[in-house]
Amino acid sequence: MGDYNQSVILDSIRRAEEGLSRVELAASAGLAAQTVSNICRRLLDTGLIIEAGKEASGPGKPRTMLRLNPKGMYAVGIHIDPALTSYALLDAVGTVLLSLDEPTDLAGDPFEVVAAMGAKVRHIIDESGVDEQRIAGVGVATPGPVDAASGTVVNPPHMPGWARVPLRDILHEITGLPVIVDKDVTAAAVAEVWAGSTSSVRDFVFVYIGTGIGAGLVLNDEVVRGSSGNVGEIGHIIADPDGPECDCGRRGCIKVTCMPETLVAQARAAGVLPEASPDEASLPQDMADLAQAAAEGNPAALDILTQSAHRLAGAASVLTNLLDVERVVFGGPFWPPLAPTHLATIPALIEHYSVTTSVHSVNVVGTMVSSGEEAFGAACLVMENTFSPNAARLLLDSKG
Amino acid sequence: MGDYNQSVILDSIRRAEEGLSRVELAASAGLAAQTVSNICRRLLDTGLIIEAGKEASGPGKPRTMLRLNPKGMYAVGIHIDPALTSYALLDAVGTVLLSLDEPTDLAGDPFEVVAAMGAKVRHIIDESGVDEQRIAGVGVATPGPVDAASGTVVNPPHMPGWARVPLRDILHEITGLPVIVDKDVTAAAVAEVWAGSTSSVRDFVFVYIGTGIGAGLVLNDEVVRGSSGNVGEIGHIIADPDGPECDCGRRGCIKVTCMPETLVAQARAAGVLPEASPDEASLPQDMADLAQAAAEGNPAALDILTQSAHRLAGAASVLTNLLDVERVVFGGPFWPPLAPTHLATIPALIEHYSVTTSVHSVNVVGTMVSSGEEAFGAACLVMENTFSPNAARLLLDSKG
Repeated sequence: MGDYNQSVILDSIRRAEEGLSRVELAASAGLAAQTVSNICRRLLDTGLIIEAGKEASGPGKPRTMLRLNPKGMYAVGIHIDPALTSYALLDAVGTVLLSLDEPTDLAGDPFEVVAAMGAKVRHIIDESGVDEQRIAGVGVATPGPVDAASGTVVNPPHMPGWARVPLRDILHEITGLPVIVDKDVTAAAVAEVWAGSTSSVRDFVFVYIGTGIGAGLVLNDEVVRGSSGNVGEIGHIIADPDGPECDCGRRGCIKVTCMPETLVAQARAAGVLPEASPDEASLPQDMADLAQAAAEGNPAALDILTQSAHRLAGAASVLTNLLDVERVVFGGPFWPPLAPTHLATIPALIEHYSVTTSVHSVNVVGTMVSSGEEAFGAACLVMENTFSPNAARLLLDSKG
Repeated sequence: MGDYNQSVILDSIRRAEEGLSRVELAASAGLAAQTVSNICRRLLDTGLIIEAGKEASGPGKPRTMLRLNPKGMYAVGIHIDPALTSYALLDAVGTVLLSLDEPTDLAGDPFEVVAAMGAKVRHIIDESGVDEQRIAGVGVATPGPVDAASGTVVNPPHMPGWARVPLRDILHEITGLPVIVDKDVTAAAVAEVWAGSTSSVRDFVFVYIGTGIGAGLVLNDEVVRGSSGNVGEIGHIIADPDGPECDCGRRGCIKVTCMPETLVAQARAAGVLPEASPDEASLPQDMADLAQAAAEGNPAALDILTQSAHRLAGAASVLTNLLDVERVVFGGPFWPPLAPTHLATIPALIEHYSVTTSVHSVNVVGTMVSSGEEAFGAACLVMENTFSPNAARLLLDSKG
């Protein structure tokens, strides 16, 4: 119970922007004053919290306020998308100290590619000059499926050759740090919780648009991971009965109608984008160009994006109707080019498709996480593991 | 915390078929011996548990075993389906002491129909001869949507005129008992947990086939209810791109392709069932006749049911892929006639559609709850509220 109580205390302090006194902590956590005092002593000794001034409240001695020490802990995040791999280093209060990204090397041997990611992490840590002893771990967000128990990625559809790649073991070996592996969609949902944008909302779905499309789930204030860590596979929700055939044998799954590469192919066919050049096509650039064309009023571009928004709204409403959530958050690496057209279309459609509009409406928003900072969510996996009293199932690699 | 600890103790005793000693209880619940002793004293005094013999375990004094007292508590369940309303009276160990059903009166004024349900409950209690002081409450399973906070049913699609019917208040007034209202699909999931069929499974979906089709969810060992108690609206999952138009404006939703009334209409069109008689059609009888025809090898009947199984498998796989569950349980009032054809078809299809087959397979089973005993699940809502330490959100009507 000691670790659990410490997590409760840390979490309370983290959530209180103004800091908290020991007396307030005891009241909010329902713990004995002596217990709180002992835990705070330990946290002060290890530098995770700091005393930040005194505050008078009524008569009596002013109370010493406790806050998180930004420099008390750090976390590294690696976000792997088939198109782009990004990295971030966060301090204990979630400030991004350093971030970078580079194209994902899908041609190389996966084991070597992951080893190079580990080397990049070491490089980032060295560059940053932070105290390595204070780095709590490396969080990795990867396309699924994953084998959560072993920290392995298992045949993600857009990463040929990544049959069973033990991300956790390789990265632990190279970095010497504890490593947490989770699906990209789940890391995105954790980031939204961590960024505080959902503090008023106990239930939401995160619709994640990367090279693939998936969903992260937060129900009753807890991140849902599923029986094997593979929550959120929504690619085979049928969104367009007139759509093309899918590899599952059905027609019109969002996998074949809404993914960025499909939209880009439609844009090429409609003459919005030029034919693919002989050198490798760049999905991020193509999506940016398509969005730009729509923003400039190109009717074909607008039509492609609006149609896609209709299909995504249909798919998202399957989630909202099934899970009775209050909010849908859209995000992921390819969300920014979609945001203008999609936010103009989707909210009304989700309202239309909602079975429970007579009881409550569903709020639709874009992610709080900045474009290009997907690795923030990966690093938040480490934060969640350290701070959240709910994260009992998500254990850091015990070898770390 | 006293009530919470008491729930933990009651739950532990309930789960142990052979009973538990105080020493075992203290160990399993992680509570001090004195706390356990005090709570057990209180539970013995109120008659919720009984001392059931002594058991020697090694040297020392034999330990007194504690068990639930079957006569210590009772619960009443009302299960409302647009076709049939059923009732059940359960004792504390879940034995159905009394059950009955009758056609749901959809022609009458909803307020009067619900009042008549209340009178029926009173009648059942009188008939049964159980000590009324020991009836913990009435659980009501109703088609959604519901307004969980007020115990009101709000415009269920197959019950015209039931605009906002305050089930809880009416039934509380007539019966004088605490009343819990929940969606039929959720009550069905609770029943499956209670019947013990899912004890090895932490995550499952319950696909409920009544007059409408819905889903109950148990994730990470907890019943999920959603932000307004309306979890499980799956009627607008598109299952057949070639299907008929739905009221939502799309085509082939399971609402218009898999519901019993659709299957019966198909059976009439194919000559499997006679044209509807001028007197009111009976969905339960029609479904039984269709299943009988299929069992006798009628190819058109077989085709109708197999097609429906294919569509339901597609819809169920949307849930299993999204939620990463280990098991799908099929049930509900119209499940029995579908079971033979559906269990022959659905498991392989769900395996085919599953995105995570490389990680784990999905188990597909029929419900443990007997045909005609849907009200068992409704009564289990009361049991869950009394016994489950997780059910903090589901409070009995405080007026009760």
